[in-house]
Parts: sequence; structure tokens; C-alpha cells
Amino acid sequence: MSKKGERLILGIDPGTARVGYGLIAQSGNRLRMVEAGCIQNTPAMSQSERLSRIFERISEILAQTAPDVMSVEQLFFAKNVTTGLTVAQARGVILLAAARAEVPLAEYRPLQIKQSVCGYARADKKQVQEMVKRLLGLKEIVRPDDAADALAAAICHAHSAILERIQVKK
Amino acid sequence: MSKKGERLILGIDPGTARVGYGLIAQSGNRLRMVEAGCIQNTPAMSQSERLSRIFERISEILAQTAPDVMSVEQLFFAKNVTTGLTVAQARGVILLAAARAEVPLAEYRPLQIKQSVCGYARADKKQVQEMVKRLLGLKEIVRPDDAADALAAAICHAHSAILERIQVKK
Repeated sequence: MSKKGERLILGIDPGTARVGYGLIAQSGNRLRMVEAGCIQNTPAMSQSERLSRIFERISEILAQTAPDVMSVEQLFFAKNVTTGLTVAQARGVILLAAARAEVPLAEYRPLQIKQSVCGYARADKKQVQEMVKRLLGLKEIVRPDDAADALAAAICHAHSAILERIQVKK
Repeated sequence: MSKKGERLILGIDPGTARVGYGLIAQSGNRLRMVEAGCIQNTPAMSQSERLSRIFERISEILAQTAPDVMSVEQLFFAKNVTTGLTVAQARGVILLAAARAEVPLAEYRPLQIKQSVCGYARADKKQVQEMVKRLLGLKEIVRPDDAADALAAAICHAHSAILERIQVKK
């Protein structure tokens, strides 16, 4: 799936109803999308069933794609505290899946991701989707939103790695 | 470990630095402590290492003790939101361990547990510890606090089950 010299970055957008994922391949400052999608749980599923399903699917994706790193958005509390708690529980099983697959973890704050992808930290959802499309050279905006957000987390890590290399060169 | 006709309830007090656990056996309205303890992580451990260790130890405890149910305190936000988020991540991997072991889950709010164990919802930590000691017929208070809190969650579930039976009888 990856070509020689490419680095695979799996971005994850945590949630309980939906978990977005997006795999990109980085070669120098060139990025391409490998795949993206969304783990979709149903409203009828219990909390425990959702956590099990998320853990199993993320573990499968990690096994199938063997990324070099997993990039996940950090959680912040803004709107709904109860929603935040259940998302944090889902995030726990996602980090567990990465740890068990021995895939290194990178974490970025939401504002860092927007800054990295759009160039400014207050970008809105549509602007992030548009920039994800452009930066990956895609013809259309990635759907659903969760998959686009996951790709944004992956791009943020790619950019920060490019930055590190530039700093090292100096 | 359990005698015939007894029901085993595993109480859990979630955390990231420490996770308390306490196993009680219920026979009618009689309760006894089977074991209690604490999974202790070290400050040097990363978030991912903590989640892995908690998942592995809880999975081991579930396999070794084969409880009929796991009783876990629900999280509420009062003091520190960031701490709450990391505790929620730990809680996620604890619920995952129960789901994978096919152990049913019971959840209670902190106030419900205090009400059930002490008879009033505003009981303090020391009162909970004292009542856990009395209700389980122990000679000393259970240490550490996390283990006592885990036993309190287990007792709360035992009491609620007794109540259900009484209601059924009427």
C-alpha cells in the first residue's frame, strides 16, 4: 500500500457515534491520500458495544495498514461535558489499540490542526475540508466530515514532521 | 473462590494513576469481601502505557475472578476537566475489558453510591470507608482509598439488587 520511502500517517477523529479515519502517505513534502472512512455505530448500540466495535475496527485498520504513526486530536471541553466524557472513553480504546499494535502516537490540539492545515487557527469546518482536498490533490471534498477531520489530523502531523526536518537542516 | 448460590460483584474505581478494584460475594442480604486492591501506575508511564496496563490488569482480574457483574462509578465533572478526560479514557478501556470478557456492566452515580452505602448522599470519604468496613464485617478500614471506593461501588450494586428482589416479592 505504501511505496518505498513513504511514511504512512493514520489520522483519527474520535467519537462514539462515528470515528473518522484517514491514512495519508508522506514522501518529503508530498502528501497523498491512501484511504479514508468512518466507523459508524448505530443508535441502538450500548456504550460497551460501541467501545468494543471501535477498538476492534481500529485494531483491524492498524493491522491492515501498518502506519508509522497515529495522529489523534486532543479533546477539549467547549459545549457538552457529558458528550466529552463518552468521546474521551472512545479515545481511550483508540489509544489502547495503537499501544497494543505498537504504533507511536502523536497528539495535536484542535487549534494546532486548523493552523497547520489552513494557516490560521480559527478556520471553520468548511475551510478545513477544502484545504484537506487541496493539500491531498483530490477532486472532491472528503465525506463524511469525520473522515476529512481525521485526514486533517494526519496532515497536521505530516507538516510538523516536515518542520522538524527543516529545523534539523539549518 | 465463590461459594454456591453466591453472586460475585466486582467494583471498580477508575483513574489513571490508580485504579481500585474490590470483589464482594453476595448471598441474599449477606455480603463478604473476597479481595480488594489497586492497580498502581508510575508517574514515569505515558498515557498509552497506563491505558495498556489498566486494560491488561482488569482483563486478568476478570479472567481470574469471573464476576457475575462489574459495577463502575459514573464520571461527573466537578473539579478538574483535564483530569476528568484522562480518567474517562481509562474508564473506556475498563468498560472495553468487561465487554470483551462478556461481563455485564452496572453504573452508578457517585451520589447513588454514597446514598446506598451510607444512607445519605452527602457522606464524606471517611464515612464511606467506615461503612464499607462495617457492611463487609471487616476489622479494619480498607486501604488504599481506591480499593475502598471500588468496594463501595460493588456494595451499591448488591443493595440495588436486594431492593429489586424485595420489590418483586411484594
